[in-house]
Amino acid sequence: MMVIDYQRRLAAVSDELGRLGLDALLVANPYNRRYLSGFTAGDHGIEESSGLLLATRRGQAMLLTDFRYRQQAETDAPWLEVKVYEHGLTAMLEDLLPALAARNLAIEADYTLLSQYQEMGKKLDEKGVHLHPTEGLVGKYRQCKDEAELELIRRSVALNERVFQDIFAGIAPGQSERDIALALETRMRQLGAEGASFPTIVACGASAALPHAVPGAALVEASQPITIDMGLILDGYCSDMTRSFVHGQADARYQEIHRLVRRAQLAGIAALKAGMTGKEVDAAARQVIADAGYGASFGHSLGHGVGLQVHEAPRLSSRAETPLQDGMVVTVEPGIYLPGWGGVRLEVMAVVRESGCEVLGTDATWLDI
Amino acid sequence: MMVIDYQRRLAAVSDELGRLGLDALLVANPYNRRYLSGFTAGDHGIEESSGLLLATRRGQAMLLTDFRYRQQAETDAPWLEVKVYEHGLTAMLEDLLPALAARNLAIEADYTLLSQYQEMGKKLDEKGVHLHPTEGLVGKYRQCKDEAELELIRRSVALNERVFQDIFAGIAPGQSERDIALALETRMRQLGAEGASFPTIVACGASAALPHAVPGAALVEASQPITIDMGLILDGYCSDMTRSFVHGQADARYQEIHRLVRRAQLAGIAALKAGMTGKEVDAAARQVIADAGYGASFGHSLGHGVGLQVHEAPRLSSRAETPLQDGMVVTVEPGIYLPGWGGVRLEVMAVVRESGCEVLGTDATWLDI
Repeated sequence: MMVIDYQRRLAAVSDELGRLGLDALLVANPYNRRYLSGFTAGDHGIEESSGLLLATRRGQAMLLTDFRYRQQAETDAPWLEVKVYEHGLTAMLEDLLPALAARNLAIEADYTLLSQYQEMGKKLDEKGVHLHPTEGLVGKYRQCKDEAELELIRRSVALNERVFQDIFAGIAPGQSERDIALALETRMRQLGAEGASFPTIVACGASAALPHAVPGAALVEASQPITIDMGLILDGYCSDMTRSFVHGQADARYQEIHRLVRRAQLAGIAALKAGMTGKEVDAAARQVIADAGYGASFGHSLGHGVGLQVHEAPRLSSRAETPLQDGMVVTVEPGIYLPGWGGVRLEVMAVVRESGCEVLGTDATWLDI
Repeated sequence: MMVIDYQRRLAAVSDELGRLGLDALLVANPYNRRYLSGFTAGDHGIEESSGLLLATRRGQAMLLTDFRYRQQAETDAPWLEVKVYEHGLTAMLEDLLPALAARNLAIEADYTLLSQYQEMGKKLDEKGVHLHPTEGLVGKYRQCKDEAELELIRRSVALNERVFQDIFAGIAPGQSERDIALALETRMRQLGAEGASFPTIVACGASAALPHAVPGAALVEASQPITIDMGLILDGYCSDMTRSFVHGQADARYQEIHRLVRRAQLAGIAALKAGMTGKEVDAAARQVIADAGYGASFGHSLGHGVGLQVHEAPRLSSRAETPLQDGMVVTVEPGIYLPGWGGVRLEVMAVVRESGCEVLGTDATWLDI
């Protein structure tokens, strides 16, 4: 397997700090932390951090954590110094930052609680250290995946498809949404995934009209629409796919809606390449659905980036004005939702390339009917 | 089942706003939102909200959400108005707050991102609305559980014990930590839990020396320490329990450590009652371990509150100076961790009462050996 070059990533942050005239960056976002260090711990919500990465303009980098995660930090990131705080993060920074001559500290405004900012800001100010809120400083590097990351994402997609196939083969009338979701998530872990990348959606019949349906007691019934939206995490990288289908014979109405969604997806895939904006790609797919008179029934955006997080930059939406770049990985997932009837959503992942895009995965079950 | 009185909870918030001289509270924390409204949606991280509750001093309350969660909000909280934002939360608040004559808006500083605060603060300021950061405004009410909540917590604890027993009975040498964790979490969901309340810990042999071990490939071996720390969510309420044991015969060393941890737990339970501080209860248990010469091997605090969140206020720790109150629910979980050997942690949940405490659950497996 290809090796991830953490030094190169940290060097990019150092360069960026130099451009901004700041001395160091405190990385609180656990996905950014992992991206820059390899430290794999997850946080149990934003209020329970398992550690932070401190990276300086001069290229120093260290993991700050508490005793519970020391061993994991040292194992995951042997190339970094691990410092264990005993009286909290702020107390450690009060000593550490002046010692590093770091007077101007960049923080992640999009992953720092207001209360943390106020408390830390006051105490560090007394030590002559000033906080500088930044947004997307690490996230912007994470958008374009390198070859090592693409290999990990391909493996995640392949395993997700295998799990879908294993369970799809056994779907039968009388099973509940909840049963199927549990079977999928159990199979993911049996086959080596860390877990689901988001709560698995299994929506039968009218609940398929809800884009974010929670699996419940509804049962699979013949000839009713079923939507399964599922993803897993393998070695830190996420996958995400959606299939809509009917058990048994699809009627003419279902076929019409399904084929329309598929045509919209193919239009999005055809439009997806470096230099296009997310807005343009979204519009290419949306137009197909609007032309058929179902525009109001496609109420969400066309897609989102996928990587260490299952939802990350960039977006394929009407508000995404920035040109896409080579190496970005996004979903293409148009849908039509009709209250009382159900819905159809078809989702694949694709890598943005200069000349077009590479659709990931090989599973074409129910894409074309 | 007893009915939860959301009106009483909202009235307490109105009273508090009156005391603070503020017009309304914007509730972003999903647990606080559920506590005040009954809206059961979960958030996929702090960056992906499924909605907010707006409660005014005059007793108005409404759920603000996007189209994906409208139906769930209306079903869960039919007593509240549901407003769907199409252009984001801030745009809705720019119109809504002036219309409600809410000029001074309390926000949750401990669940608001700095970037959200800066963006929202600037835009609302232009409309004559000012943000007032608060902390723990709803959380302080959540600490003391009413009878309806205690009933839900008892059911969560009972189910957690049943799941433990179902899987414990089949533990055998050769099974991996990961296998056992997956079996526990699958069983939780088969029996009706929403899922685990935190990632299940199964630590065999030397990994039992890590309080937050991640289940891996290590196998159950006869006569080695095993620690299982598990909890589930049932109807929104969490449980949390830990057992340490050996498969087969426990040697004299294991028995000594285990009995010492149990004596510390019983000392904590004996000290736990309304009026005591978390610090005093923590010290009562810690003293037993320190007197036996293992003080340095008990590196975490004695316990934490449990309710809608598995870790919430109050804490039983050396920094908890506030007196405990009747109806609080906490864990009592001393541990001893010896690198290279393993560890023992025993955890029960208990309700604080005026005259002492009520230990929840009936499972005493491996508490006394």
